[in-house]
Amino acid sequence: MPETKVKKTDDFNEWYNEIVELADLCDKRYPIKGMNVWRPYGWKLMSFVDNLIRDEMLKTGHHEVCFPLLIPESSFKKEEEHIEGFGSEVYWITHAGLNKLEEKWLLRPTSETAMYPIFSLWIRSHADLPLKTYQIVNTFRYETKQTRAFIRVREIHFFEAHTCHNGFDDAEKQINEDKEIAKRLFEKLSLPFIFSKRPEWDKFAGAFYTISLDVLMPSGRTLQLGSIHQYKDNFAKPYEIKYENDKGKHEFCNQTTYGMSERILGAIVGIHGDNKGLVMPYEVAPVQVVIVPIIFKGKEKEVLKSCNNLYEKLEKNGLRVHIDDRDITPGNKFYEWELKGVPLRVEIGPKDLEKNQIVTVRRDNGEKKFISNDNSIGEIIKTLKTIKKDLFEKAKTLLENNKKRVNSIEDAKKLKGIVELPWCGNEECALEIENILEGNTLGEPLEDEKCTVSCPVCNNPAKTWMRYAKTY
Amino acid sequence: MPETKVKKTDDFNEWYNEIVELADLCDKRYPIKGMNVWRPYGWKLMSFVDNLIRDEMLKTGHHEVCFPLLIPESSFKKEEEHIEGFGSEVYWITHAGLNKLEEKWLLRPTSETAMYPIFSLWIRSHADLPLKTYQIVNTFRYETKQTRAFIRVREIHFFEAHTCHNGFDDAEKQINEDKEIAKRLFEKLSLPFIFSKRPEWDKFAGAFYTISLDVLMPSGRTLQLGSIHQYKDNFAKPYEIKYENDKGKHEFCNQTTYGMSERILGAIVGIHGDNKGLVMPYEVAPVQVVIVPIIFKGKEKEVLKSCNNLYEKLEKNGLRVHIDDRDITPGNKFYEWELKGVPLRVEIGPKDLEKNQIVTVRRDNGEKKFISNDNSIGEIIKTLKTIKKDLFEKAKTLLENNKKRVNSIEDAKKLKGIVELPWCGNEECALEIENILEGNTLGEPLEDEKCTVSCPVCNNPAKTWMRYAKTY
Repeated sequence: MPETKVKKTDDFNEWYNEIVELADLCDKRYPIKGMNVWRPYGWKLMSFVDNLIRDEMLKTGHHEVCFPLLIPESSFKKEEEHIEGFGSEVYWITHAGLNKLEEKWLLRPTSETAMYPIFSLWIRSHADLPLKTYQIVNTFRYETKQTRAFIRVREIHFFEAHTCHNGFDDAEKQINEDKEIAKRLFEKLSLPFIFSKRPEWDKFAGAFYTISLDVLMPSGRTLQLGSIHQYKDNFAKPYEIKYENDKGKHEFCNQTTYGMSERILGAIVGIHGDNKGLVMPYEVAPVQVVIVPIIFKGKEKEVLKSCNNLYEKLEKNGLRVHIDDRDITPGNKFYEWELKGVPLRVEIGPKDLEKNQIVTVRRDNGEKKFISNDNSIGEIIKTLKTIKKDLFEKAKTLLENNKKRVNSIEDAKKLKGIVELPWCGNEECALEIENILEGNTLGEPLEDEKCTVSCPVCNNPAKTWMRYAKTY
Repeated sequence: MPETKVKKTDDFNEWYNEIVELADLCDKRYPIKGMNVWRPYGWKLMSFVDNLIRDEMLKTGHHEVCFPLLIPESSFKKEEEHIEGFGSEVYWITHAGLNKLEEKWLLRPTSETAMYPIFSLWIRSHADLPLKTYQIVNTFRYETKQTRAFIRVREIHFFEAHTCHNGFDDAEKQINEDKEIAKRLFEKLSLPFIFSKRPEWDKFAGAFYTISLDVLMPSGRTLQLGSIHQYKDNFAKPYEIKYENDKGKHEFCNQTTYGMSERILGAIVGIHGDNKGLVMPYEVAPVQVVIVPIIFKGKEKEVLKSCNNLYEKLEKNGLRVHIDDRDITPGNKFYEWELKGVPLRVEIGPKDLEKNQIVTVRRDNGEKKFISNDNSIGEIIKTLKTIKKDLFEKAKTLLENNKKRVNSIEDAKKLKGIVELPWCGNEECALEIENILEGNTLGEPLEDEKCTVSCPVCNNPAKTWMRYAKTY
């Protein structure tokens, strides 16, 4: 069976770079660095991820909007911390045709400064709250670090939810809902993750606090897939998003945002894939079941008829199925669909017809099964669910084996992945550990865990645990 | 019943401007002129239109891709006519953060110059052809004319199909397929249209020929909803899109494109709407049937139960249904759903329960019907289809009554809408008529119609008919 030139276990990053193009997800030859072409298969996959997000948004009463891409400099500059955080990474439009613009416009790096002037027009009274909106759009950030398909790009396929609330507590409820959304969504994608509360110096520009959502890639580096921000009234004040409460008093809204990106696809590729190619959980697989007729002379008709029967039954059950009846060898077909990560392959040949059976082969572990035609649909659906669960468990084992809590820097240095060390609460101590471990702070665990040991840098009593990891 | 401040028949353009905001389609208060905010209802509607287009693309073997928004100046400048046509209307990015870019980038006004350098890498042999791709993205054009929501904007919600072919004839087949797609699509949207072959001086920059697809708005102006372009090898040459044919010889591809935009939504609003608001054909209506319980004291439970029963049955039949059980008067509910253009309203009250019936009210003509509960589903579906057909017929009558063929400019001056006049083939004569009629040339009818009279400007024998109209 053909495999990737670079093995996943030998050089994860190179393997990743190879697989994203080999599996037709994207084309990296576009003449602007970090802006890649979405090929049809990659775009389809991303659309299925987007649709899972849309389902969650619908369920939780968020409304999809679409705000302009371009933001006038004056709107952008209203919140000081925000411009400090993003000012150096935005793209500026200065000319239209041959004319110089009176005011410069920028490409949204995220949409707070596009949306909030309009939110201030939409919101009048407490009856307008909560306002729960989201959009799925492209955003732009001038990345100076090395780019990597889906993981670090300059044109980002971006999900952003923006909500406005009557009071801090209602915004906190939203944060809880966001966490539940993440749990449901990433369970479907077989991606176990951890939440961390970002340290003060590394929260989103303008936020009151930031919760990050990280997965562990097989390279031992973490990949941040999303973030949830509590803004309090930090943006509502400069953008004047006010409402009249039920006592007739005008108050500033409390706001939250929730951001995710195509990094989700990067995590699916990186965590589940192997040397044969992609491995997709069925929820997002463009083809969930591929049927390959095994044809020998004389039995073509019967075999194809049986394939078609199965196809129809599976489609009626809401599955995305494909019959590959091209005139190439079954081996070549297997190779292609394995590369594309189709979770389950079905083979039907003359012998199977005789035995009233079909053959199923799992993409994730190659397990081959002979299933009676009488209960094939139920078995196939069950297997798809088992694959999803097994992918989740495998990734969970990876995460758990590489997330350790230790008391000393010496112990931490011996570890790969995510390390939790006691922390006194001082920025300097955390940055010192970052330096020593050549990693980044991820943040504190959300659970309010007591830490009774002392900070390994200053020896003062630790207030909490702090997570460190090498990151993408 | 509340109505718009401005009546559609009094001042169509003002009525249109009022209705797009009143019905919550968009917000025009964004601080950049011509870049509007898509509100949830408008975005949903547009998404249903997009999905109809996606269905057609799937049916015809086109693959969805997504190319970067930004185009390097050097890629853009490869096709001379193209840059001449678009150079004055593109937005330029000159800076990233505080750094000046080495090469300027522009926001795509359309994606030929982004896609074709990559197509030249994708296509190697005749086996790679035809290449049929499309994308639905935002494009940008620096409009200097007056902007109008969905009709003339600077950030455009854009559909663009790009195909590459083995030979001119195969590209011509694609043009025919595109025409069939338009017929199916616009029939679903109840929008009758005409195809015209654009004159040489008004074809797409770089095209061999251009076919435009225009509808007639109730103001008497035409609105171009789409265009189909035959490029021949005009782009393939500068972008070196070559393939090896089955004789081993290298040839340039022949290419076509197909473009449409949010103007489709503008046409739906403008052509079908009335003084009460939007009128939507069911294919794109976010809510196809709204059920309003007519509640009097004592019978609440039974009425709501009956509403729920109907809701479930309609949903099972694949319809988008909503029960409006808010605590406001039925009249207010009627007003809101009429404004939103829901094609069919169902009312159920205690009297209807007694009579085992429901009441349906058509949005387009107000027709009220009493339908037995026993065949309510079939009747509702039939009515939705009738509404769609009636909307189409009404619009077709408008188009036919305002599209006339005459021989003299004097006669043409008396007419509104689309006028066909004999044409000798000279640009000067057509431009002269444009001036006199204060309109634009739309192009020639596609049907090869003989014209035996003489050109009303130069008196030379006419070669064909030329259409003129005031346009948006």
